Amino acid sequence: MAAPSAATIRSCVEAALPLAERLFTQLRQHTADGPGVSREPYAAGEQYAHDLIAAAGRESGLEVATDCAGNLYVTLAGADRSLPGWITGSHLDSVPMGGNFDGAAGVIAGLVVLVGLRQAGVQPLRDITVMGVRAEEVSSWFGGSHKGHIGSRAALGMLDLAELEQAVNVRTGATLAQQMQAAGFPPAALASAPPYLRPERYHGYLELHIEQGPVLERQGLPVGVVTGIRGSMRARSARCIGAYTHSGAVPHEYRSDAVLATVALVGGLDCAWEQVRAEHGDLVFTVGKLYTDDQAHSITKVPGEASFSIDLRSQDLATLQAMEARARALAESIAAERRVRFELGSFDLSPPAAMDAGLQALLAEGSRELGIACGTLPSGAGHDAQDFAHAGFPAGMVFVRNAHGSHNPDEAMELADFSLGTQVLAWALTR
Amino acid sequence: MAAPSAATIRSCVEAALPLAERLFTQLRQHTADGPGVSREPYAAGEQYAHDLIAAAGRESGLEVATDCAGNLYVTLAGADRSLPGWITGSHLDSVPMGGNFDGAAGVIAGLVVLVGLRQAGVQPLRDITVMGVRAEEVSSWFGGSHKGHIGSRAALGMLDLAELEQAVNVRTGATLAQQMQAAGFPPAALASAPPYLRPERYHGYLELHIEQGPVLERQGLPVGVVTGIRGSMRARSARCIGAYTHSGAVPHEYRSDAVLATVALVGGLDCAWEQVRAEHGDLVFTVGKLYTDDQAHSITKVPGEASFSIDLRSQDLATLQAMEARARALAESIAAERRVRFELGSFDLSPPAAMDAGLQALLAEGSRELGIACGTLPSGAGHDAQDFAHAGFPAGMVFVRNAHGSHNPDEAMELADFSLGTQVLAWALTR
Repeated sequence: MAAPSAATIRSCVEAALPLAERLFTQLRQHTADGPGVSREPYAAGEQYAHDLIAAAGRESGLEVATDCAGNLYVTLAGADRSLPGWITGSHLDSVPMGGNFDGAAGVIAGLVVLVGLRQAGVQPLRDITVMGVRAEEVSSWFGGSHKGHIGSRAALGMLDLAELEQAVNVRTGATLAQQMQAAGFPPAALASAPPYLRPERYHGYLELHIEQGPVLERQGLPVGVVTGIRGSMRARSARCIGAYTHSGAVPHEYRSDAVLATVALVGGLDCAWEQVRAEHGDLVFTVGKLYTDDQAHSITKVPGEASFSIDLRSQDLATLQAMEARARALAESIAAERRVRFELGSFDLSPPAAMDAGLQALLAEGSRELGIACGTLPSGAGHDAQDFAHAGFPAGMVFVRNAHGSHNPDEAMELADFSLGTQVLAWALTR
Repeated sequence: MAAPSAATIRSCVEAALPLAERLFTQLRQHTADGPGVSREPYAAGEQYAHDLIAAAGRESGLEVATDCAGNLYVTLAGADRSLPGWITGSHLDSVPMGGNFDGAAGVIAGLVVLVGLRQAGVQPLRDITVMGVRAEEVSSWFGGSHKGHIGSRAALGMLDLAELEQAVNVRTGATLAQQMQAAGFPPAALASAPPYLRPERYHGYLELHIEQGPVLERQGLPVGVVTGIRGSMRARSARCIGAYTHSGAVPHEYRSDAVLATVALVGGLDCAWEQVRAEHGDLVFTVGKLYTDDQAHSITKVPGEASFSIDLRSQDLATLQAMEARARALAESIAAERRVRFELGSFDLSPPAAMDAGLQALLAEGSRELGIACGTLPSGAGHDAQDFAHAGFPAGMVFVRNAHGSHNPDEAMELADFSLGTQVLAWALTR
């Protein structure tokens, strides 16, 4: 049984596009929140999305299943069901007042592939399962101590159940464990079940997602193959402690200026970033928050305190570790020189996840066969694909061009670009 | 008639010190506000101080007068009243919950000189007038548009009466004009009167004041001669406008990072300050306020806005102007390079005031004759002496060692240091 040609793939996907349009429209209408959408994990918005996709799968004659964490699985049987199958998909929750496509596009793309193939009578060699993941955006709904990406990590056996007790809904105060229980997914069931997904049973994981930066748009490309998912190293609440004194009457040698010391540190890290770029390393560096104390600061006082955050992201763990070491060494020398004290606190590490080289090549080959212009780029944001990679699955991602970033109502994916991305995905899933 | 010897000066001042102690104690008791003192301009606290000093002058047989602005003048007649007289003094108001010595020490020092000389039967060659200045600290009580230092500028004919309408009491909402009227000093009287103090009628102005920085304390010196009063160049509400974007997904070349651009600007000005110091120029540079927008910032967003202040102070106007030019040029090049926009706004200039070289030499000579260890230093804060200098008076200042800065309840002048500073003042006033 030969794999379907590029022309077959194209016609299968295009035939199922009206289904995608209908599903996007229903999702938007039923989870609307102001100009955006809100699909809270283990709450009404996310549940609506799961019910909608499950119903669409059943209507198309596909197999539908759910695991203990509430993740959804819609499967098209392959010709040889003993072979390890493909798994594709993304998450069905959203950030509060987020965009309609972030997450959902990957699930609907997978469904389009299955429905398109089935309608055309094309049976793939291997099973293809579309996964609707729960609670990927949990960090934007739940505070407290947890590592996010609840659904994928639960399915992969990588979730510490204590996290469900430590995650607290910022609006209601309920723990995530309580909210899952109320939604019909008791954590106790998770505790006793073996991992639902095991790498030896799957050929690989492929995820389509809208790009959350401007790279494809600026480069005029509809689709991109992701090289890796950047990990992050973050100091959330760093401080510099100096001493408040008179801005006119105290000479340089008696000052402990927290702002100038912080500027020296941040400027030094900015230089370090430039060096990494010059050596073609992968890194972004952001001080998103920087502030003097509005209860104590004044134009005419040497500032005695500055607070700031550091967010470092790279596909390369060693680069992140080197930047943390650089930050600590700089802080130490600047503190001695400028008579201040830095409290950088701990750096939280989320390790990077390389995408599988073979899957990157397969996706690139598919785009060439289909005649679709396609770039390569890292993902700066986290995705379920990283959890699959960390669990030992070969993992790959397809990005679809998207204006205005994500996590806001203004994200703007064209259906034509979605179709091209889905064709690349379908080509790979039928190899 | 020979000028009194160092020994006579010393004994005159020491004999009148119990008066100083009594006046400081009464001032503190009657204007106490929590741990500090509050002497609001043209209100009860300042008025108490004026009444106290006037009464002490009258009790000692000195001439007492008041001008239209409510400034107090206590005079010891000289042997030749046709000669231009000395004027000495400082202000009797304070900042809210300030220290007991800031201002009052200079008035009480002058009174100690007059009373000490008179008690010892020493008549100076020239009239010596002690001035109790009104409303020097007006900026800490009144917002709106005004140039501060109301009393001295009124007496010197340098006050624009419109300022009295534009200054608004931050607590009561009354204009300064209304508050003066209620205190018995109608601005209309000021408008019709000629300046009370004219430079041609005075030999010079000398002011004793506590130091507001740590220099004398760190150097182990009880007294210092002030070389000049630093002027200031201030950008009160500067901003850098960039664009908020995803901290992980947007590469360096598509960022408009307002924090890194502001860090580059502030770091560049810090380098410029270092150059000025290396060339032995006089400058202090402070960014007392620096903050991202707490409604919009996030650890995981490239910051789209940063707000900051710039306070530059120098005894040299050209240095201030060069630093403003440097700031504007740096902002322009950084904006182009980093895809941001700076809105520095206008820089408010308060020009520096050099202290008279002859008076500096006279005060230094006095300290030598008296055997008092004495340094030289600039004043970083503003003082009434700057208004006298700007009005064409030879002006000089004596600083007295003071721990913990000023404008707070913890200022700590020792009476022994006050005595030494007053001796230097007395020596000069009797030349």
